[in-house]
Order: sequence, then structure tokens, then C-alpha cells
Amino acid sequence: MCGIVGYVGERPAAPILLDGLGKLEYRGYDSAGIAVYDGERIQMKKSKGRLKVLSELTHDGEIFPGHMGIGHTRWATHGEPSDVNAHPHFNADQSIVVVHNGIIENYLKLKKKLTAKGYEFVSDTDTEVIAHLLDHYYQGNPLQAIIKIMHRMEGSYALGIMFKDHPKELYAVRKDSPLIVGHTKDGCIIASDVPAVLKYTRDVYFIENEEIVRMKQDSMEFFNVDEESIEKESTHIDWDVDAAEKGGCEHFMLKEMYEQPKAITDTFSPRLKGKEIVIEELGMSDEDILSVKKMMIVACGSAYHAGVTGKYVLEGMARIPVEVDLASEYRYRDPLIEEGTLMIIISQSGETADSLAALRDSRSRGAKVLGIVNVVGSSIAREADNVMYTWAGPEIAVATTKAYSCQLIALYLLAMKFAKVRGTVTDQELEGYIEDLKRIPEQVEMLLNNKNRIQKFATRYLAARDVFFIGRGIDYAISLEGSLKLKEISYIHSEAYAAGELKHGTISLIEEGTLVAAVLTQEKLYQKMISNMVEVRTRGAFVLAVTNEGNGEVKRAADYVIYIPETNPYFTNSLAIIPLQLFGYYISVGKGCDVDKPRNLAKSVTVE
Amino acid sequence: MCGIVGYVGERPAAPILLDGLGKLEYRGYDSAGIAVYDGERIQMKKSKGRLKVLSELTHDGEIFPGHMGIGHTRWATHGEPSDVNAHPHFNADQSIVVVHNGIIENYLKLKKKLTAKGYEFVSDTDTEVIAHLLDHYYQGNPLQAIIKIMHRMEGSYALGIMFKDHPKELYAVRKDSPLIVGHTKDGCIIASDVPAVLKYTRDVYFIENEEIVRMKQDSMEFFNVDEESIEKESTHIDWDVDAAEKGGCEHFMLKEMYEQPKAITDTFSPRLKGKEIVIEELGMSDEDILSVKKMMIVACGSAYHAGVTGKYVLEGMARIPVEVDLASEYRYRDPLIEEGTLMIIISQSGETADSLAALRDSRSRGAKVLGIVNVVGSSIAREADNVMYTWAGPEIAVATTKAYSCQLIALYLLAMKFAKVRGTVTDQELEGYIEDLKRIPEQVEMLLNNKNRIQKFATRYLAARDVFFIGRGIDYAISLEGSLKLKEISYIHSEAYAAGELKHGTISLIEEGTLVAAVLTQEKLYQKMISNMVEVRTRGAFVLAVTNEGNGEVKRAADYVIYIPETNPYFTNSLAIIPLQLFGYYISVGKGCDVDKPRNLAKSVTVE
Repeated sequence: MCGIVGYVGERPAAPILLDGLGKLEYRGYDSAGIAVYDGERIQMKKSKGRLKVLSELTHDGEIFPGHMGIGHTRWATHGEPSDVNAHPHFNADQSIVVVHNGIIENYLKLKKKLTAKGYEFVSDTDTEVIAHLLDHYYQGNPLQAIIKIMHRMEGSYALGIMFKDHPKELYAVRKDSPLIVGHTKDGCIIASDVPAVLKYTRDVYFIENEEIVRMKQDSMEFFNVDEESIEKESTHIDWDVDAAEKGGCEHFMLKEMYEQPKAITDTFSPRLKGKEIVIEELGMSDEDILSVKKMMIVACGSAYHAGVTGKYVLEGMARIPVEVDLASEYRYRDPLIEEGTLMIIISQSGETADSLAALRDSRSRGAKVLGIVNVVGSSIAREADNVMYTWAGPEIAVATTKAYSCQLIALYLLAMKFAKVRGTVTDQELEGYIEDLKRIPEQVEMLLNNKNRIQKFATRYLAARDVFFIGRGIDYAISLEGSLKLKEISYIHSEAYAAGELKHGTISLIEEGTLVAAVLTQEKLYQKMISNMVEVRTRGAFVLAVTNEGNGEVKRAADYVIYIPETNPYFTNSLAIIPLQLFGYYISVGKGCDVDKPRNLAKSVTVE
Repeated sequence: MCGIVGYVGERPAAPILLDGLGKLEYRGYDSAGIAVYDGERIQMKKSKGRLKVLSELTHDGEIFPGHMGIGHTRWATHGEPSDVNAHPHFNADQSIVVVHNGIIENYLKLKKKLTAKGYEFVSDTDTEVIAHLLDHYYQGNPLQAIIKIMHRMEGSYALGIMFKDHPKELYAVRKDSPLIVGHTKDGCIIASDVPAVLKYTRDVYFIENEEIVRMKQDSMEFFNVDEESIEKESTHIDWDVDAAEKGGCEHFMLKEMYEQPKAITDTFSPRLKGKEIVIEELGMSDEDILSVKKMMIVACGSAYHAGVTGKYVLEGMARIPVEVDLASEYRYRDPLIEEGTLMIIISQSGETADSLAALRDSRSRGAKVLGIVNVVGSSIAREADNVMYTWAGPEIAVATTKAYSCQLIALYLLAMKFAKVRGTVTDQELEGYIEDLKRIPEQVEMLLNNKNRIQKFATRYLAARDVFFIGRGIDYAISLEGSLKLKEISYIHSEAYAAGELKHGTISLIEEGTLVAAVLTQEKLYQKMISNMVEVRTRGAFVLAVTNEGNGEVKRAADYVIYIPETNPYFTNSLAIIPLQLFGYYISVGKGCDVDKPRNLAKSVTVE
């Protein structure tokens, strides 16, 4: 979960590295470093803290005049954030230098072996092992040394490497961590992700697992582990660079919340053709759809929460049994995949390590995999049998809002499509769902425009230590996401409960004044929820309710009520989540937290 | 989740009521009350707080000389704990008096209607509605009035009722809340549960839904809603009264933890016949077992956690797909039950309202249901197609220990039986599992005997505000239960995470000194877990590890290590949970909490 960047070419490397790292800071930001080679010396500067510290220390890169270099922005896995643990890492005589994204799982074993051979370590990182390991195997041929260490490392890595005695060659290699390369006007650039290179090129090569790249100012060669040269094709990226700016908002998160009406529209509108749902990229005939006996949704974090809602919607509308699992659990379960199972992997970045591994595992067991992904050309998008993109655009804030909302829409569309083909909805019902879907963007907008009321409420809970979210059915799924939004950016220990489970233990945590957010958008469960709200309120809780317009009875059991406009029971998540996103956001702002880059978290979780 | 008791007979009623309520206090204990009828006046005393307050106020019942009465120990649902909200509840002229267990869901509507007719309410409870409703419909015939209100109330109830103008008749009726009746030597007794009546009779009648009982000193008649008399058969109970005493321990919870080796042995030994697993009460032929295509485990609280482990064991050993769901979620899901699905409902009490409702729903959809239940003759035991009892004996502490441990054993036995019949284990493997199973009781004993070390560790964390439990696979299931044990009795906000999910949000809550309990009993996941432990430790967490003997590498990533003895990977939950139970227990003791009766909780959750 780090970002790496590298450049070799005509121009001074350092400013390009710093600029690229700036675009990758969402991947990690506890420390950063660059190493630049001017043909005589490899000079390095590393620093704990945000990238701007490094920029100041290097006078925006001016103190390093060389034309080749590598850079890194870190999210600590092994070794706490510090100057010395920041990348790049040298070997002992500073003739080899490395930046690394990923985790070397057998690093302790390798470290022990190298120590026995006399190597001395200055950092606590797994990456330093790579530098010394390269030193150990290097006999003048960089490619051969890289291949040797690849056979000895277990885990995941994307590496950028420079060798002092090859002053015009930049090397890169990867396994299970993303890496792209591209030609600039005057050289070559490598990076963990597209935003870092957009300024220089729009045609990139996605490096595949265990492929090695040798770059010079005017050439780029790819090799496999047998040192054989391989041919690759580039992919054209047509993202808008401006899309990654904050657009006038104080934080990316707020900007991205405001982009939700458009993102939702972008996600459903290409798939609505009159009264039909057309998902061209689904790659499934009606016959294929009829042959699906079960769906298995696998994802992490918020995407998992979208999946929990998806289960209710798909089972309810299309009457297909759906199982949902966390990717980090699923992949180690030795899962039983029954015939006729459609796997659905949901991931904003398309690089989520556990989700990607689950995808590979499922495919190797013969399952057909559909990816619901936001980033075009990402690993999950490339490796799934079919991809349904969410058109949320780049998302920078660590706490997802618009990508999550688009994942919900994709799942609704899928449910509607399957329901139609399988005959579990009437044409009239389907038309009703389509009308409801079309109304969501303006309803979301309306909820966003009510932000002041939520901001005011949030200021009362800045000092809260514990918050509970409760709901039943889809409302439980909404609670999961509402709780995560709050905890990840405000550092308040919030927890979501299936309301019926409270009495089996957690209700003992309710004290005088504890905030309990109750979500009740499912009319048939109103009475059960109100009973649960009365129970916590009887024990002193302050109850915030999020419910449908017209639910007057809720006032008897709630201290504060937020209403959402009318839609059908399957789509309420798309509306009820908006005030909860705003609540998390304003608590975080009010507490003075780093909203867009909460401590300890990174946007795209590419390690396990 | 209240306890009710009633008596009519030769002896003074009040002491019998107080004694019975004492045995039911585990069902609720925020207030209590009794009403006694001496033929002239119905006298009542109610009080907030534990039962002993009421005993003192009534001089152990001596101030009330009547021979018929009803009593109640309450766990608040509607209306905070208070004298006035305690039961029994009168009508206006004190000619009708009621005790109630359950929730009247339409009470607000009924209250409104009665208020319009001039009835005045003194309490906030749903129960008072019943008293006034009876008053409204009563025209001299108690049975007819009871039947009328039954048609008007929605929700669940067990009621004990006295009418002033029927001085020798005690009435009871129930729907979806448990109620038993029995003849004593000199009268009749009613109660919510068996312990209250054991002293007086061992032959009891389980009242079924919507059955009404009319008791006199020397007779007991049952009626249906058509006023027709019905015949019932009694059940003989052979529990040991002494089993419900603390046996020398400071708390029931500690006593029950110590009973685990015996309870585990009692649960597996009748089912082991040499090298075979024989589960007679399973009621399934080998052919039936082979025809199972899927299992669905439904439960609440700790029983749900046992089910999560069960999924791993059953899928791993017997290669049957298993889905696990919370009962409170499952029943409102409109679930799709595929052909060949075996439903498994797990419940200690056998009265858990949501689990019972899930059972009924599944059966009405044609599924075959197996109950894993501790209380013989309980509703789930009676209504399931087949029952596999856990032989844990009565469990009094609200926080379950021995019943949970026995649920695990029942699931292991089921997995072994299915694996054997389905040919997914070799005879040799099965023998190995049997040997491992037989070793568990002494291994648990050994872990219990190491309690001092855990006690010492626990004293360091009495002031903790937040604790996280992390694990993967079965270790995640153990974490769920370990976390619940801590939170329910110590009021510390603890939360369990699938270790791989931490990075998707919750890791932002980790601060300097936060306690993270890491469970790693699955050897193939050691490396992944150690990576996660390093991540939280890097951010300042203090890491407590629970792992297998011989896992030396864990010390690199943990601050404190507890080892469990060797068993196979499927059975580790039975061992790893012991130190976590002890940890929760000693934190609770150290903080001076009411270990056996934590605030807001009741033992058997018979409301939804």
C-alpha cells in the first residue's frame, strides 16, 4: 500500500518524481523518499511525514540534478514510520537502490541468512532485505540478479531499482502489486498507478506478474523470468486530469459526496434503454442468466457492505440465493464452489489484494467471475471474465462515498436484469424500479443540500467515545457502512449491529447519553425496530433515526429524526447512506481530523 | 425477557412466589413485584432493583396472607425500570391484575383507543394496556375476556391473571413466550421456566401457543381459543436442583467455566461408540445424510459464533456448503430455501425468540430442522424435526461458557458423522479426530488451571476503553466470541475483526497502547496473521497472542503470548476460547461489575 515512481530520460528526474508521488499520496503518506542518479553518485533523501516535507528538504528536487531516479511514498507495514524506514533503500556501498510496494513474507528468514553472511541492516523494513539480496546475487548483470531474487522472495512486490554501474538503465519488476510503465516525450516513467503518469503520457503498459522491465531514455524492454524478451501492448487512458482535483471543496470527501448524483446517473444511464436493462459488458445471454443457480459476492470494506445490500436486492428481486463473504476470509476458506455459481468481485480500485486473490482462486476452481470495478484496466478488471464498471471517476478521499454509491447502483441493475430475464418481476414492477432509479440522483442531491442540519447535529457529538448503528435487513447493511464512515475518519469507536442481536450482549455497553443511530427504511420492520429503539432509549441512549418520510410513529422512540424521500424498499440504501456520510464527515471536520487521509489508512489496499 | 410465577392452593402464596422469582432472576432483574389475593383484597407490592428489595419490603411475603397470587421479575422493554413500571399491573378499580412476559407490539394503538374511552394509564409499560383491555371486555366470564384480548393483541405474551370476583381461580395464557404449569402437593403453580417449580413438582405441562389455563387449588383445565377444553400430557423433569447453585465459586460464570471439561465429555461420550459416531437422536439415515446438499445454521449471540466455527468445520471435514445467519436477520429475509437444505438452529435455552421464529418459518417452507439445544423440552426442542442436545446442564450466568463449548462439540460430532458417511475422511483421519476430541476435556482443564497468569494480565487492562480481537478463518470465529465475552460483562467496547479487514477502516482506531488480542491457531495462516499483528503493533498497539504451542515466531509480533495445547486445526476453538473467557471474567471481576448479571442483559432472550 505504497506508491512508487521512477523516471529515466532527458529531464531532471527529481521534480518528475515529486510530482508523481504527489499524485500517489492517496496510496500511503507516512513517509516519502527519492533517490537520483547523476552518473556519478546516487543521492538520496528520505523523510517521515507528508510529501511536502520531502519537497522542502530537496528544494522541490533542485538539489538533485540527475536524470534518472526512483521515488516512494509509504504506508508502513514492517517497521514504524520514520526517516530510516522510508524508501528508497540502499545496499551497503550504496551501489544498488530500491523502492518497494508490497510485503516480503519471508523477510525474517532472508534477513537471518544475510546477517549470517555479514550484511548489516539499518532499518526495520522488509524492503532493505531486497537491496542486500540484490547485492548478494549481483555479478554485473542486473537482469540476472533480479531474476535470482525473484525466486527467493515470497510475498508481493512492485520494485523500482537502479544499479550504480548501469547509469542509464532503470529496472522494474512486479508480483501481486500493481505497476505501470509508459513512454514520455523524452524518456520512460514507471508508477504504481495511472494518476502519476497522466501528465506525461496517456498510453501505458500494465506490467504483469513476474515481468521485468529495463528502461533507458529511448527504449523500454520487457523480459520474463527466463530472460526472454516479450512483446506487450499499451492501453490508452482517457481520464480527465482535472477530475482528480478538489473542485472548490474543502476536502476530496465532500467533493466526492457532491459528485454522487452525477456518478449514479453515469452508472445507470448507459444501461437503461427505454424499458429494458442492457448491460452489454455483462457478457451473459439470457440462457446464461437462467443457468445461474447461486451468486457469491466477495469484497472488502465498503464494497463488502454494498455486497450485503446486494444480497437482499438480488435475493428479493431475482430470487437467486446469494452468499456474501469478506475476501480476506473467503480466499483461505478452501471454498466449495457449486456448479452454476456466478462469482461477483466488487472493488473500487480493482487492485484490492484479497479480492484479486479471491478472483484468481475462484477462476482456478472453474467459476465464472464478474468484476464490479471502478478503475479501468485494473488487475481485477483485466482478470475477471466480465467487468461491469462503476462510472464514479477517480476517487481520492480514503473514505469511499461515490464509488460505494455506484456499486449499489450496479447491483440494482444486475438484480433488475436478472429479475426480468428470470421472470420474477412483472413488466410493470420493472418499470416502477426504473422510475425509482431515475429519481435517485435528484433525491441524493436534495439530501446533500440538507447538510447544514446534519452538521449542526454532528457538533453535539464531537466528544463521543462510542456510537452504535442498528438496523435490520437492508438497514443493517446501511448501518455497517454508516458505522465505517464514522470510525475510519473520526477515530470514534463505532460499531454496527443487527438490531435483533443487541440484546445478545452489546446492549450492556449502552450508557446514559450513548448515541445510537437507528436506520429504519423497511416498513415491514418498523415495529421491530421501534421496539429495539425503545430498549436502548430506556437504558439512556440518545436515538438518532434515519427513516422514510411519513413514518410518524418513529418520533415516539427517537430523539432526532432524519427523513429520506420515498423510493422502493430495495433502493433505500442509496438515500439513507447520504446523511450518514455527512455525519461522519462533519464529525471528522469538527474534530480536526485529516478527513481525506485518516491515520493508518490508505486508499487502495494492495497488501493482504 | 421477564420471569413470571403464580400459585393457587392451600399454602400462603407470597413465599412461594418470592422463592420462584428467585429462581427466575436470571431472566430479568431490574424490578420485581407480587400481587396476592386473600379473598377480600388484592394486595400488591412492586419495587425497582433486585428481588431482595421486594423480599425486605414484604417481610419475605409475610405481610400478604392470601393463598393465591402472581409475581414477576422484570427486564425492561417498554418503560424504564421503576417501581411504577414494575409488574403486576392493575386495572383502575384494582379488580383485575396481570403479570406479563413478552412485548405487545400494537400497544400504542391499543393505548390510544383505551385512552379515548376514558382509561387512564399510570405506567409507560405495554403491560398496563392488558389490564385495561381486560377490564374493557370483562363481563363476568374471565375465559371469554381473555379470549377477546388475545384476538386484539399483536406480539408475544405469557400472562398470569387474577380476577377479584373469582377469588379461587388463577388464569394463564401464552403466545410466543414460554410458560409452564404444574400440580404441587397442595395446589397449582405457573412459571416461565422449570427452575422456579422444581421444588414443588417434577411433572410439568408446557403450555402451547394460544392455550389458556384455569387453575384452582385442586384442578387445572386447559382451553383453546374456542373455549373448548383440551387434554394435555405432562413431561417429567429430572434435573438436579443443586446443579443451579454456585458450588463454591464466587460467580456462576466461573463455576460454569470449570464445568466445561465435564460438560464437553457429557456431550460427546454418549455419541462415541468405539470408532463410530452414533447420534441416535439425529433421526437421519445414511441415505438422508447423503442427500443433504447444503446446511443453513441460524442462531443468535454466542450460538451464532459457534455456528460460524461450525461452517468451517462442516465445510472442511464433510465438504458440504454451509451458510450461517443471525436468526433476527434470517427470519425477515424472505429466505430462499433450496431443496436438500438441512436447517440447524442452535440455542442454549431453546426459547430464543428469533431462533424459534426462524425455525417455524423454515418448517413452514418445508425445510427439515435440526435443533442443537441445551434445555430439554424447550420450545425449539419440541418443534424441531430432530434435536441434538448439548448436555451442559443448567447455565445461570448470563455470559454463556459451557453451553457454548458444548455447542462446538455437537457441531464437531455432526461434521465427523457427515464426513464419515459421505466418505470425505478416511477411517484413519476419523480415528485421529476422535482421539483429539477425547483429549479436549483434559486440555481445557489444563488451560483453566493456568488462570492466574491470565488474571495477572487482565489487571493491567481494567481501564481499557477499546479492545480489538483479530483472527482469520476459525480464529475469526473465536475472536467474535472472545470479544463478546469481554464486552457483555465488562462494558468495555471490544470488537472482533476478520484480521484482513482491519486495513479497510478499523485500523484508524489503533492508538498507542490499544490492546489487540490476536488469535492464531491455524498454522497455514500464521504468516498472514503475523503481518497484521506487525501492522497494528507498528501503530502502537499492545498485542496479546493466543496461539498453538510451538509457534515460536509469534513472539516477534506479540507483546504477550498464551499458548494452547496441540489438537487438529478444526478443534482449536474449544481450547483458544478458554483463556479469552477467563480474560473477560477477570476484567469484569477486577472492575467490580456484576459478573453473572450484567446490566441490561438477560439470560434467555425470549423477546425479539
